[in-house]
Amino acid sequence: MTGTIVYGFNAVSEALQQPESINRIYVAKESRDRSVRPLLESAKAARVRYDFVPQAKLNELTGTKDHQGIAAAISPVDYTPLEELIAQCGERAVILAADRIQHERNLGMMIRSALGAGAAGVLVSDRGSALLDESVVRTSAGTVLRLPVCKAGNLATALRALKDHGFWIYGLSADAVDSVFTMDWPNRVVLVVGNESEGLRPGVRKVCDAFVSIPLRSGLDSLNAAVSASVALFQTTACR
Amino acid sequence: MTGTIVYGFNAVSEALQQPESINRIYVAKESRDRSVRPLLESAKAARVRYDFVPQAKLNELTGTKDHQGIAAAISPVDYTPLEELIAQCGERAVILAADRIQHERNLGMMIRSALGAGAAGVLVSDRGSALLDESVVRTSAGTVLRLPVCKAGNLATALRALKDHGFWIYGLSADAVDSVFTMDWPNRVVLVVGNESEGLRPGVRKVCDAFVSIPLRSGLDSLNAAVSASVALFQTTACR
Repeated sequence: MTGTIVYGFNAVSEALQQPESINRIYVAKESRDRSVRPLLESAKAARVRYDFVPQAKLNELTGTKDHQGIAAAISPVDYTPLEELIAQCGERAVILAADRIQHERNLGMMIRSALGAGAAGVLVSDRGSALLDESVVRTSAGTVLRLPVCKAGNLATALRALKDHGFWIYGLSADAVDSVFTMDWPNRVVLVVGNESEGLRPGVRKVCDAFVSIPLRSGLDSLNAAVSASVALFQTTACR
Repeated sequence: MTGTIVYGFNAVSEALQQPESINRIYVAKESRDRSVRPLLESAKAARVRYDFVPQAKLNELTGTKDHQGIAAAISPVDYTPLEELIAQCGERAVILAADRIQHERNLGMMIRSALGAGAAGVLVSDRGSALLDESVVRTSAGTVLRLPVCKAGNLATALRALKDHGFWIYGLSADAVDSVFTMDWPNRVVLVVGNESEGLRPGVRKVCDAFVSIPLRSGLDSLNAAVSASVALFQTTACR
């Protein structure tokens, strides 16, 4: 599922008035219609992602053939602008940053844990991440609708902005020497968790002030991504 | 998936020589064949669960119509007898007990976390639990094949046996006053986690020595079951 789907030039053009509400625009590969072009230009300008897909995929997504070759998946989540989240943060605050978490289920579980652990909000990288769709809403047990979620076109840039507001950026990384269980956390913490198989991107690692790990026994090299994020999150908030 | 399926009187009778290896026996509802009866009696005696299912379901499970009305799902996991697990435990040991965890994915994630947290083994209630099938193997990232797993026909009885060996039984329960983060854990701990929606059964609660909770903020009433188990497990082992 990808949330509500709107289709046709007018509906997509209307949706583009609030670009933050759009998860993705889908354009039929086969479309030769010139009217699509200005919409894609608006999308580009507003940094809304668009993908070219086969006509058949669009038929399936929209449940009709009358889609004029374009559709938009509207997010069930109202994204919060990063500046607004920062403004809401107190002297002590934890933000979870998810770098390209691919599986809706993991993203949903993380967001649920973030709310339960008392995090101020979640920052999600735009590219390479699961869409915040109905499936995330479900696996988050609805918590994604209660916690501020920000979408970052460029996660490293967003993390730098958080640094400027006194946040310390901790990357969760299996090879880190410092343990989440013994860390002396500062007042303002961003915990960054990376993709299920590849971890944090180099560009994101560069922005981190420090790295922390969950020490594992029995030679195990990793936990489920949502479990790792949750175990670490509760250390940043509940243990202090 | 339910692991390897064997079918027909001979194969199921053979499998019943090692009843611990059988996840379930499936019997065609429509079967009037008397030869099934002694097999079901053996199954009953060995406490192997059998379910009556439509013929069509058996056809599907076995991929044939030549199943003689009976099939057995063989577990990919070699269960460890509880006494053997107890014998392996040192002075300090943690065991995770899962009371009717329904979703394979949750069970798999819990087992992975249990291995990573250094638990000695996992105890799974037989009735009402997800089968330890290929899907659990996958979501546990193969760890279910590395950690001793015991199957308890009666979880309360198994917990009492553990008490007799110096284990303290802690039920994870949202309404408990004591927090997993501040608990002073004894040397030998069993952490009991309950069903995704109903929590611990009354009979299991009665055997618990104490209850612990993960304090949640923002009015959230629960985390994902596998996440809860993992956060608590790491408190019993990594923080001491």
